[in-house]
Amino acid sequence: MHKFKIAVIRVVTLNDKEKLNQHGRLIERYFPNLQTTSYCIANQYNGVHDDASHTLAELKIEKIVEDIKHKYQGIVVSCAGDPCVDKLKNKIDIPIIGAGHSSASFCFNYGLKIGIIGIRDDAPCSIKNILRNNIIKFIKPQGVKNTNDLYTKEGQLAIINAAKELKHLGAEVILLACTGMSTVGITSILAKQIKLPIIDPVFAEAFTINTLCLQKTYFN
Amino acid sequence: MHKFKIAVIRVVTLNDKEKLNQHGRLIERYFPNLQTTSYCIANQYNGVHDDASHTLAELKIEKIVEDIKHKYQGIVVSCAGDPCVDKLKNKIDIPIIGAGHSSASFCFNYGLKIGIIGIRDDAPCSIKNILRNNIIKFIKPQGVKNTNDLYTKEGQLAIINAAKELKHLGAEVILLACTGMSTVGITSILAKQIKLPIIDPVFAEAFTINTLCLQKTYFN
Repeated sequence: MHKFKIAVIRVVTLNDKEKLNQHGRLIERYFPNLQTTSYCIANQYNGVHDDASHTLAELKIEKIVEDIKHKYQGIVVSCAGDPCVDKLKNKIDIPIIGAGHSSASFCFNYGLKIGIIGIRDDAPCSIKNILRNNIIKFIKPQGVKNTNDLYTKEGQLAIINAAKELKHLGAEVILLACTGMSTVGITSILAKQIKLPIIDPVFAEAFTINTLCLQKTYFN
Repeated sequence: MHKFKIAVIRVVTLNDKEKLNQHGRLIERYFPNLQTTSYCIANQYNGVHDDASHTLAELKIEKIVEDIKHKYQGIVVSCAGDPCVDKLKNKIDIPIIGAGHSSASFCFNYGLKIGIIGIRDDAPCSIKNILRNNIIKFIKPQGVKNTNDLYTKEGQLAIINAAKELKHLGAEVILLACTGMSTVGITSILAKQIKLPIIDPVFAEAFTINTLCLQKTYFN
């Protein structure tokens, strides 16, 4: 089997190798023809959480991509905010994608009424620019302030309640706008309980980078 | 390798088995884990070319799907107009997708300025509903009136000129809104000449049905 070599960039500083590789391992499980190597930005232990940290992260991502791009067939910026992705798209010759673009665009295969669950006060711009008026509602689950809260029973219950509300409002598909939700495995739980398609951001970036690499192989 | 069994429905009457299987063969080449069986609607040798033929085709597609759905893990309606797809989505338990939805949604992974080339007077509604104001321009190449014209030198030159015009207007990606363009293999020619990502409708329906089947496997 031909394997595409993919760099996965985490937008939070992770010294624990297990944690660093978490998204990469999921990507490889979903698409065994992808072989990942994970990187992370330095000195940002709280990741990207406001405009200043977003800008700071972008500079670091750009530098990482510059240094490593020659070694890979594709790059995943594993964050629903897609930091630096649009800028880099025009600067490098290999496909690059973030979780936001890839999750948002795939929603349309299920319908035009899209519900979003995230941990910030609003959906990332990259997602809003694609979905615009098709967003039924964005919900930040009650009591969920950061990715740590996703691991608690209360946090997961709040996500389930948010998904129920979105379904009640007419959502045909629910987008999880935080890659941390992929890590905790909430997607299957939601799909089973809510009986709606749930877009998992790490799965979305996985099939999208795979497709972008295949598109280049077949048509360039 | 686990193979998903996929039904491919052609929206034109094709008695020649080679021609009937043409899209299915492409789908299997792009994704060797998809195993296709092709069907076509009866007594519509000119396919879908206006509102009356579209409605007539929808009734026939619905009947085919009703008869065969229990044998497959997914269904592709191989047409950029997505006839009957939205209606059937809510009626059956397996993923169903058309070339229009799948091509249009994937464009967003390349950018927000999208050019479209088709052989009708306008883009199909299913594509316009997804892309809306992101459509830079729809072009029907000069002298191309039906799929037969796609095989002539003049037809292919007209498509190349249309793509050049779309690039000049700022398109970041070009969507081919007719599955006949996949059959003639114009996608690679355009990608090489225009140096823009070109969305091939049969490739798009292939990776989308694959992703929808995988999504169901992993998260349901």
